[in-house]
Amino acid sequence: MNFQQKLEKITKKNNSCVCVGLDSDLEKIPKHLLSCKSPAFTFNREIIDATHDLVCAYKPNIAFYEAEGIEGLKVLKKTIEYLQKKYPEIPIILDAKRADIGNASKMYAKAIFEYLNVDATTVYPYLGYDSAAPFLEHKDKFIFFLIRTSNPDAKTFQDIKVKDKPFYLYLAKKVKKWPGRNFGVFCGATYPSELRKIRRIFPQRPILTAGIGAQGGKAELAVKFGVNSQGMNLICNSSRSIIYASNGKDFAQAARKEADKLRKKINKYR
Amino acid sequence: MNFQQKLEKITKKNNSCVCVGLDSDLEKIPKHLLSCKSPAFTFNREIIDATHDLVCAYKPNIAFYEAEGIEGLKVLKKTIEYLQKKYPEIPIILDAKRADIGNASKMYAKAIFEYLNVDATTVYPYLGYDSAAPFLEHKDKFIFFLIRTSNPDAKTFQDIKVKDKPFYLYLAKKVKKWPGRNFGVFCGATYPSELRKIRRIFPQRPILTAGIGAQGGKAELAVKFGVNSQGMNLICNSSRSIIYASNGKDFAQAARKEADKLRKKINKYR
Repeated sequence: MNFQQKLEKITKKNNSCVCVGLDSDLEKIPKHLLSCKSPAFTFNREIIDATHDLVCAYKPNIAFYEAEGIEGLKVLKKTIEYLQKKYPEIPIILDAKRADIGNASKMYAKAIFEYLNVDATTVYPYLGYDSAAPFLEHKDKFIFFLIRTSNPDAKTFQDIKVKDKPFYLYLAKKVKKWPGRNFGVFCGATYPSELRKIRRIFPQRPILTAGIGAQGGKAELAVKFGVNSQGMNLICNSSRSIIYASNGKDFAQAARKEADKLRKKINKYR
Repeated sequence: MNFQQKLEKITKKNNSCVCVGLDSDLEKIPKHLLSCKSPAFTFNREIIDATHDLVCAYKPNIAFYEAEGIEGLKVLKKTIEYLQKKYPEIPIILDAKRADIGNASKMYAKAIFEYLNVDATTVYPYLGYDSAAPFLEHKDKFIFFLIRTSNPDAKTFQDIKVKDKPFYLYLAKKVKKWPGRNFGVFCGATYPSELRKIRRIFPQRPILTAGIGAQGGKAELAVKFGVNSQGMNLICNSSRSIIYASNGKDFAQAARKEADKLRKKINKYR
């Protein structure tokens, strides 16, 4: 089963567009876990076990694991293996935001799709098609091209006018013509009107969004504008507001509560 | 000593603007090394020992190490430690091409500047200042913002017209205004006229370039246009044409020969 089929199946089964961002930061996880053998893995496992029936995907951001060096990567690998063994029906999106010239992109794709063996990843399209091709060649995998990031300064370059249209739309239209069916796009939920324009360009493809929660994105608009005509194919990532809902011993149950709250909120609008 | 001071000192000492790209690929290194305990590290160590008096920097591209998973990262860490112990006067640029929103960028900067502890790295500026700030805050470290990549399809987006100027120049001018003195820029040697325009915007800052060699960039133009008014602050990376100059037992000496050839060629024009 490829990413899109997996996504559709789990979205229906769990009646959810929620993606939990596994951005585990040793400085933020509950203090009582720090005495465990592998605090970050224990944290992830507990969060996963408490939320698996409320989500459509998990999205670890590799930056948080790289920050802990080789130990961090062991945690990431172990988390991916845990998910694949215990919850094989849930797709894993590795948020890696990679891009390089062809021969190096090939290596990044190998790292992500072969070594870590996740279902999907995020890629910058700014270097053009030849830099993206090595990712797209993994036809059983899925790529989200970053069209509009969620941060406040995204405006600086992504909104500049190109032929009277903002650059991110120019980017979206060009990317749409790239060969292959195994890609969708990313647009921050902090920019709902941009998300609407991007959905019009990609009426059916999966869209990954983020920023509902800690970054202040408004759920109603992001959902209404982000879903396809069947109210599907929108993956709403939330990291901090779910995984750090509590820093006490009840953190996993607090995460479950937040994930369910977000699931219901999204379902109200899609 | 910070990156710029280190760079200036070693450029003068070795009379060289050559940076050797340590992009070690297990499929390309000499076959006789594959029986070693750590083939990629042995390869790097031999290349480094054979070229250390001919270079101004080393630039491992992390993609090649990530492709080998945790083992690859151990090789990268070991290579960095070897360089820092044996040749502490040579700066290390980790080509990581990272960029993310603030809280994740902070983690990437931690991974690169604290865990791997290299002198410099490459960063995409496309997300705006708030995504770059966590890197720039490491004031004793150095960042190369990727303004113009070396690949053929770089043109697709980097050349689009913004107020009648190509996008990469708009990018360069905006980035120039960002606070901090600890950054320079990257422009591919495959685009010498673009390199000239970028040098005019950054008359003194270090510029990292690549593509002289395997990618077909012309040395003469790239050097003439890339150096500052003192014939300095241009770092010319070459990976494949140096490190894979031979795949026999003479690979390190062949790499030395190629590095020296490139060094002399560059010195002729700067």
